[in-house]
Amino acid sequence: MRRNADQPTIDDVAALAGVSRSAVSKVMNGRGGISPKTATAVREAAAKLKWVPSATAVALRGSRTRSVGMVIARSTDLLATDPYFAVMISGAEQVLAPRGYGLQLHLMGDDPEAESATYRKLVRERRVDGFLLTESRIGDPRFALLRELDRPAVLIGIPWRDDPQPHVQSADPLRGMLDAARHLLDLGHRRVAYVSGPDDRVHTVQRRETFVEAMRAAGVTPATVAARRFDSLEARTITEELLRRPDRPTAIVYANDMMALAGMGAAQRAGIDVPGGLSVVGHDDLPIGAWHYPALTSVAQDLASLGAAAALTLLRLLGEEPPGPIPDIPPTRLIVRESTAKATHQ
Amino acid sequence: MRRNADQPTIDDVAALAGVSRSAVSKVMNGRGGISPKTATAVREAAAKLKWVPSATAVALRGSRTRSVGMVIARSTDLLATDPYFAVMISGAEQVLAPRGYGLQLHLMGDDPEAESATYRKLVRERRVDGFLLTESRIGDPRFALLRELDRPAVLIGIPWRDDPQPHVQSADPLRGMLDAARHLLDLGHRRVAYVSGPDDRVHTVQRRETFVEAMRAAGVTPATVAARRFDSLEARTITEELLRRPDRPTAIVYANDMMALAGMGAAQRAGIDVPGGLSVVGHDDLPIGAWHYPALTSVAQDLASLGAAAALTLLRLLGEEPPGPIPDIPPTRLIVRESTAKATHQ
Repeated sequence: MRRNADQPTIDDVAALAGVSRSAVSKVMNGRGGISPKTATAVREAAAKLKWVPSATAVALRGSRTRSVGMVIARSTDLLATDPYFAVMISGAEQVLAPRGYGLQLHLMGDDPEAESATYRKLVRERRVDGFLLTESRIGDPRFALLRELDRPAVLIGIPWRDDPQPHVQSADPLRGMLDAARHLLDLGHRRVAYVSGPDDRVHTVQRRETFVEAMRAAGVTPATVAARRFDSLEARTITEELLRRPDRPTAIVYANDMMALAGMGAAQRAGIDVPGGLSVVGHDDLPIGAWHYPALTSVAQDLASLGAAAALTLLRLLGEEPPGPIPDIPPTRLIVRESTAKATHQ
Repeated sequence: MRRNADQPTIDDVAALAGVSRSAVSKVMNGRGGISPKTATAVREAAAKLKWVPSATAVALRGSRTRSVGMVIARSTDLLATDPYFAVMISGAEQVLAPRGYGLQLHLMGDDPEAESATYRKLVRERRVDGFLLTESRIGDPRFALLRELDRPAVLIGIPWRDDPQPHVQSADPLRGMLDAARHLLDLGHRRVAYVSGPDDRVHTVQRRETFVEAMRAAGVTPATVAARRFDSLEARTITEELLRRPDRPTAIVYANDMMALAGMGAAQRAGIDVPGGLSVVGHDDLPIGAWHYPALTSVAQDLASLGAAAALTLLRLLGEEPPGPIPDIPPTRLIVRESTAKATHQ
């Protein structure tokens, strides 16, 4: 297929961006080793020229599986117990489905070796074109693995230690935690507990530190308890224990909505009114929280938009979509509903 | 590769089952045109002989995608709003993941043409080895389509009008509805409402009819309202309307747990105590119901086992697993928790 002389070429993009052909190719193929600045310059140049890597893309497309892999290292009952992933997957489907792409899901327990083996196998057997990654981890080994395997991947979240892994994140991922601290302080809460998730996740540590520091700046030191799993049963047990303390908290913030709802149920079953005797705050703003009575105050992150943006970014890396800036994801923010009220000091 | 003379062959299976080689092959490959009786005879003979269609299976396996398709004709936010599917998928993953199989998910709106096109494309492009089907429909067109496409598929649920489609179902899929009717009658409820899902699903109609007939046999005629979607918002609106009626119900049964929780929240927000002023019953026994306060009385169907049994049945049709009887799924049953109590006649 000959190119029309009027059509932009990869050389035009390289010239406009002031980089080599190979750098353009790397950016378009989602390879590593490219600085964010160069990647942005390439994408801007491609967008200005309305250049799509069509010849390559068309050739590649023929051997495409039109399947995107998502390997989740949590127990296989995860989708059932935490709709967080389901919402994100729904968001990704909204981009993938109309383009004829499917999502290849692999759920496995928290077993790093089995996880690496799965990535290797999916690549070796050419069963997926690229990957969506979730739950950025401390010392995350997946980025290096996928660079070694030479497959594009987009992380939903903040990479550990500024790894150049392509990723999408909320415009202000920690603002919601600051809002939550401010909200509870404004309501007069001074005995506050924070029930966080497992400590090996980047977001778990960042959110807790953000919340604790914001409270401390106002002279309040929250009690913190780290759950070993993001788990309703553990949330219930921890809540029961917190509420038995003589200086029991007047407000509890949980790492996610399902934990918050389980904690709220435990408090109510113990005869403590929510929000009269205890204020409860969740995270993720899942649909169920709004239907619940009392409706759950929660930090909203636009999970569906995150899933959609990640899918779009991956399709661009695959040359299936014209290049462009990564879509804006709204900042996280606190949605105040019925489960928080003025502190009652007993 | 030579076969050891001691090893059973397809001819042995055919002889023992009293059928032709081709019938054995059709059963093992999940083709249509085989009576359930013949299929059972073949499976039993294969099990007795411990025969695995290894040569064929090995040959086939080379061209396998090791991917199972699941095309869901509901909105892309489905996974987020109804964990029902998530639980079922989790069950399927428990069988698929250890065998290196992935689940290829395609969510699409309720668009029959797009749905057929997706099945055709996935088969034409050899992107999946077989399918899991959910939500048996009245006049379901998928069975004929998949026979035409010659791809094995297993339905989770009861096929419309005794279609020979391979399927898995609970041992007694409607017993839980009978239990629910008996439970509410025993508690003295006489003004009862049933909020069902859309009328084009086989299970929706069967469950409603079972419940209504059981109540009528005791002289009680429930009010029935069919939601257009399995939707929390609609459940809330319908509940608010039911509770404004002068003869408002003392108990409401909902088509699923998420609708029941949304309905319960609406009642509580209107100042009606649950279960003091209103008893609430859900369906599916999702994890969230047990953490809620009051914990939800619900009809349990073992969704994870259904998903796992369907996946296992499909892997057998694909020759990946030794043949055997379809695993037993526990009968549906009512789990009585805190959301139901004696009727208070105001």
